[in-house]
Amino acid sequence: MTGFSDASLRERAARVVPGGMYGHLNAALHGDAYPQFFVRGEGARQWDADGREYVDLMCSWGPMIVGHRNPRVEAAAAAQQALGDCLNGPGPVMVELAELLVDLIPSADWAMFSKNGTDATTQALMVARAATGRTKALIAHGAYHGADPWCTPGLSGTTPNQRADTVEFTYNDLASAEAAAEEAGDVAAILVTPFKHDSFEDQEPADADFARGLRALADRIGAALVIDDVRAGWRLDLRGSWEPFGVRPDLTAWSKAMANGFPIAAVTGVDALRGPAQTLYSTGSFWFSAAAMAAAKATIEILRETDGPALMERAGARLREGLAAQAASHGFAIKQTGPVAIPWLSFEDDATLDKGMRWAAACLSEGVYLHPWHNWFLSTAHTDEEIDRALLGTDAAFAKLRAAFGAD
Amino acid sequence: MTGFSDASLRERAARVVPGGMYGHLNAALHGDAYPQFFVRGEGARQWDADGREYVDLMCSWGPMIVGHRNPRVEAAAAAQQALGDCLNGPGPVMVELAELLVDLIPSADWAMFSKNGTDATTQALMVARAATGRTKALIAHGAYHGADPWCTPGLSGTTPNQRADTVEFTYNDLASAEAAAEEAGDVAAILVTPFKHDSFEDQEPADADFARGLRALADRIGAALVIDDVRAGWRLDLRGSWEPFGVRPDLTAWSKAMANGFPIAAVTGVDALRGPAQTLYSTGSFWFSAAAMAAAKATIEILRETDGPALMERAGARLREGLAAQAASHGFAIKQTGPVAIPWLSFEDDATLDKGMRWAAACLSEGVYLHPWHNWFLSTAHTDEEIDRALLGTDAAFAKLRAAFGAD
Repeated sequence: MTGFSDASLRERAARVVPGGMYGHLNAALHGDAYPQFFVRGEGARQWDADGREYVDLMCSWGPMIVGHRNPRVEAAAAAQQALGDCLNGPGPVMVELAELLVDLIPSADWAMFSKNGTDATTQALMVARAATGRTKALIAHGAYHGADPWCTPGLSGTTPNQRADTVEFTYNDLASAEAAAEEAGDVAAILVTPFKHDSFEDQEPADADFARGLRALADRIGAALVIDDVRAGWRLDLRGSWEPFGVRPDLTAWSKAMANGFPIAAVTGVDALRGPAQTLYSTGSFWFSAAAMAAAKATIEILRETDGPALMERAGARLREGLAAQAASHGFAIKQTGPVAIPWLSFEDDATLDKGMRWAAACLSEGVYLHPWHNWFLSTAHTDEEIDRALLGTDAAFAKLRAAFGAD
Repeated sequence: MTGFSDASLRERAARVVPGGMYGHLNAALHGDAYPQFFVRGEGARQWDADGREYVDLMCSWGPMIVGHRNPRVEAAAAAQQALGDCLNGPGPVMVELAELLVDLIPSADWAMFSKNGTDATTQALMVARAATGRTKALIAHGAYHGADPWCTPGLSGTTPNQRADTVEFTYNDLASAEAAAEEAGDVAAILVTPFKHDSFEDQEPADADFARGLRALADRIGAALVIDDVRAGWRLDLRGSWEPFGVRPDLTAWSKAMANGFPIAAVTGVDALRGPAQTLYSTGSFWFSAAAMAAAKATIEILRETDGPALMERAGARLREGLAAQAASHGFAIKQTGPVAIPWLSFEDDATLDKGMRWAAACLSEGVYLHPWHNWFLSTAHTDEEIDRALLGTDAAFAKLRAAFGAD
């Protein structure tokens, strides 16, 4: 295919895809400045269909974690692909990957694999329901747990029955979780993200007392504590994102960055839930394909050997410091929230996101891809040089914004 | 990893995966003779972890359709992978693939992509529900539509609410479908496989009157007719499996063989449902990854250029004739059901499947991988020579079975 442009592709896509695009990568949701089509990635960079190069601070919305086209991950997947990927059973690599997860994650005595993050959150709730014989899942209001009808943030195409087995509480409000448990009665699981990373809002760390309180609540009512580490997993603590609190879940859902972009998801769980997990019929045509498992093994080994989270924390701290200095120098009051490796920036007094949208658009035009209403993601490919390159763009974007808004 | 065997891998897997394995590829479901782990595929052959070679009549339970490691498909995926797979937006190949589907499939005015067959059946029902504002889906009793809680054949881990939006009818019994529609009242969709391919049962073609009657029923009650072509798609008629009846669905779910083993699924639909489809929030981290789309495009192009269904029909006819002659010569009364490209063999007077299990086990030991209670799948790599090699094994297996049961 030659001679395409983002505009020509959009025009063609509008004829053969509803709305031209859908889901979280739909540029229509992101703002007029956003390109829709991408053609290449390398390390911390991506190129759109118009050939524009970006320092990529979204990492494909999470999956990329050791750099686009990481040579070791690509080689591991290609070597497996050269033998076979989708066969009449899993390859030996499934066992190796499960052993790696069990070795690495204190709350993991076993693992089950699938494709989508939503497969993992759904499967985790199935295990909890099989174990307890109960139906309800407590979830935080506004939290994203996937796009299946039971959890998609859009209600279109869903039925009341599909939404009837979840009961909401307020993130970081233990009393609200206790009240929801009381109200629901029949609680199989408490499903919670390791920090609050809802779209359109400042990110919020979990209070240690909230995390410990949910663990205690789950124990008291005999429900499973399920951490949805699909978005945050592998960037903060390879042992699980609440390990620093000393809070270990019964079940954890993993996906996104697990295989550096290759499609895979997993549920890990404690020994007590091994029997109930065996009773499920949960499967998919490609869930046992070997190439993505080889990629996952390589990705996780790289992260462990290089202390990937420390590298991403260094990159994130450098970015955060740089952005803070730039905002101050251009006279903008900003908030930087979330773990530094999963950062977000918002402007004070910007309820409409007008400033945020304009600044993000200016960043795009300066060759930095980040987002005005969804958290960003860093990778181990974000070296000091890449962060500094990004900061050149963000500084120019602040200057443009200042020019647009006039002197402070 | 060296020095492994199927037995040693099972022992290790038992420690780190619930039950050692789960889902449709769990060898424990298939019989003692079945190997669990596979290491390699090539053309119409697969090798298990003990190095045993098989003529593969299961095609990885559907996904392989132009031969394991088909050079053109592998090259297309690798070329895309070398540029980028999972990026901040889809690649141009998404447009090309959607255009190909719209060009090929008369009932397709648009396409949406996902990963699992279950994603596609679920998404199709979401579109139908968004379009109609109704909740219920009519499905045939015993039909497999995936493994999400709403449709998995195992009830463990599911809730009554999750199962409450489907109403069953009897396959090939139009009156039962009409009665189910009457009973349900609030019907958004009729979801149906193009033929009856339930496990443990002889396969059954759809009656043309049944297919046309469902189309008329859907029109009369204002529901969407959804064909679940996940299992049968691409092997019978590239235009959709009910096109020979002249029955065109409103929506079709596709997956399995679409990309020769690369993970992808799709929903295609008619123009009237384009608007409702736009209202969904349905997405996944890897749904827009480009390598699997490049593989899908190459697979479908090969199937179209070579008339893949005709090749598979030739292979299936040769297999069916050979098996019929062998069974007669060894004095076994058998039934061969399903389209010849998606065949199955069962024994008369074998309600316990004892004969079928023994014969399948003997086939395995003769280097032929097929199945005693699930339909098989052929591919375009099943040349006359491969079918003849398989028939050598099945003949020896009939002989063993005859020896075990004594003279007829």
